[in-house]
Amino acid sequence: MSRLTLVLGGARSGKSRFAESLARQHGGPRTYIATAEPFDDEMRQRIARHRDQRAGDGWQTLEAPLDPAAVLPREGLVLLDCVTVWLGNLMHHGRDLKAEVTKLCAALEACPAEVILVSNEVGLSIVPENAMARRFRDEQGLANQALAAIADNVFFIAAGLPLKLKG
Amino acid sequence: MSRLTLVLGGARSGKSRFAESLARQHGGPRTYIATAEPFDDEMRQRIARHRDQRAGDGWQTLEAPLDPAAVLPREGLVLLDCVTVWLGNLMHHGRDLKAEVTKLCAALEACPAEVILVSNEVGLSIVPENAMARRFRDEQGLANQALAAIADNVFFIAAGLPLKLKG
Amino acid sequence: MSRLTLVLGGARSGKSRFAESLARQHGGPRTYIATAEPFDDEMRQRIARHRDQRAGDGWQTLEAPLDPAAVLPREGLVLLDCVTVWLGNLMHHGRDLKAEVTKLCAALEACPAEVILVSNEVGLSIVPENAMARRFRDEQGLANQALAAIADNVFFIAAGLPLKLKG
Repeated sequence: MSRLTLVLGGARSGKSRFAESLARQHGGPRTYIATAEPFDDEMRQRIARHRDQRAGDGWQTLEAPLDPAAVLPREGLVLLDCVTVWLGNLMHHGRDLKAEVTKLCAALEACPAEVILVSNEVGLSIVPENAMARRFRDEQGLANQALAAIADNVFFIAAGLPLKLKG
Repeated sequence: MSRLTLVLGGARSGKSRFAESLARQHGGPRTYIATAEPFDDEMRQRIARHRDQRAGDGWQTLEAPLDPAAVLPREGLVLLDCVTVWLGNLMHHGRDLKAEVTKLCAALEACPAEVILVSNEVGLSIVPENAMARRFRDEQGLANQALAAIADNVFFIAAGLPLKLKG
Repeated sequence: MSRLTLVLGGARSGKSRFAESLARQHGGPRTYIATAEPFDDEMRQRIARHRDQRAGDGWQTLEAPLDPAAVLPREGLVLLDCVTVWLGNLMHHGRDLKAEVTKLCAALEACPAEVILVSNEVGLSIVPENAMARRFRDEQGLANQALAAIADNVFFIAAGLPLKLKG
């Protein structure tokens, strides 16, 4: 039985859909941890689209833009979507990203529920000109490494198709 | 026998060369559907380089920058290179990209010829600052998912080397 | 026995750490070829971090920001980290990148030592607006193809996890 699964992929790679298909294989109660803070209409539409995809599927949804570790349920299946938006929120609010990632890792290791994490791979381009963008891609890459190290299964998604990296 | 093959990869990943090596395994008549509209010298050189690579190989070349579905041959092997340039042309001309992708998918499913599609994976970086770039990477990602869903074989190319995602 | 290994990955993908873990499996003398020229504090910190990771591990370090081919040892294990920084230095100094890559490939093929190369995959985003960035990602992609073609083993690293592309 898998306990912690990390689903990595690019923008519009189908990673959320793949994570949801994994989640549906779980028979118990399902909790969706939403990380998005809607800053603008573009993001609001994105959130709505993801909600629509889950509609009628019997998920309990928890909003945790800054501290998902604090709301992790003790049972069933948890889908946290996504780590990238959470890290963006932390950076926006001036938090210590490395400390927060360490805290989430500890919470995940202590959590008896099965957890699926969705995260973006953002480092496969030329170096961004923007210093904050450079810092973000460094933090995201390090977070992905830390989460992958404690995950039982890791998938890389491209064009909706999974490639197993671990497990 | 494979009918529809999708070859994904980054810029200068060797995806076109790999797709052409697949195409050369086919014994029948070969049609190359070129999608590029040369806007500037950089693109003109790129087109010429790709042409040089096919030179003397006995390809029939069709130019279809906006509507490749309309020129799909009924037999032999078809290489469409590439979906990304085609999507860029559609966006440049203000077309409805989702509708055009749906139309191409329908044409591919009805096409009796063997088809190889080349497309870029463009979503593995930080979010672009430019809104049109963000929209393009969304459309490209969705198009890749739609094409991968109907493809028999999907390859991801890195450094000229194929990784099989499907088939 | 592997002779030439290419380790590809994005920024903060764990590719250097993976390459170092491969290197540690080698019993003989180990040479680290450092390519970085510290232009600013950010790069200086990055260099220092990588040095710290090798600290006390008994590596001989050679600095070769422009001509690693000239310093390749004749025995033991060589880790060249990384091709991307080297290409950036060449571009900064106005060198002919294709000629230099050809020269490195020839030197690697003639080198009796076991060599591990670290390089970035930078082409999986939308087309950069900056012309020099476009040129760099083209040169990097072509260099990766050339090196992968002569490598015995090629790995793609994501979130610290290796995916074997060749070998």
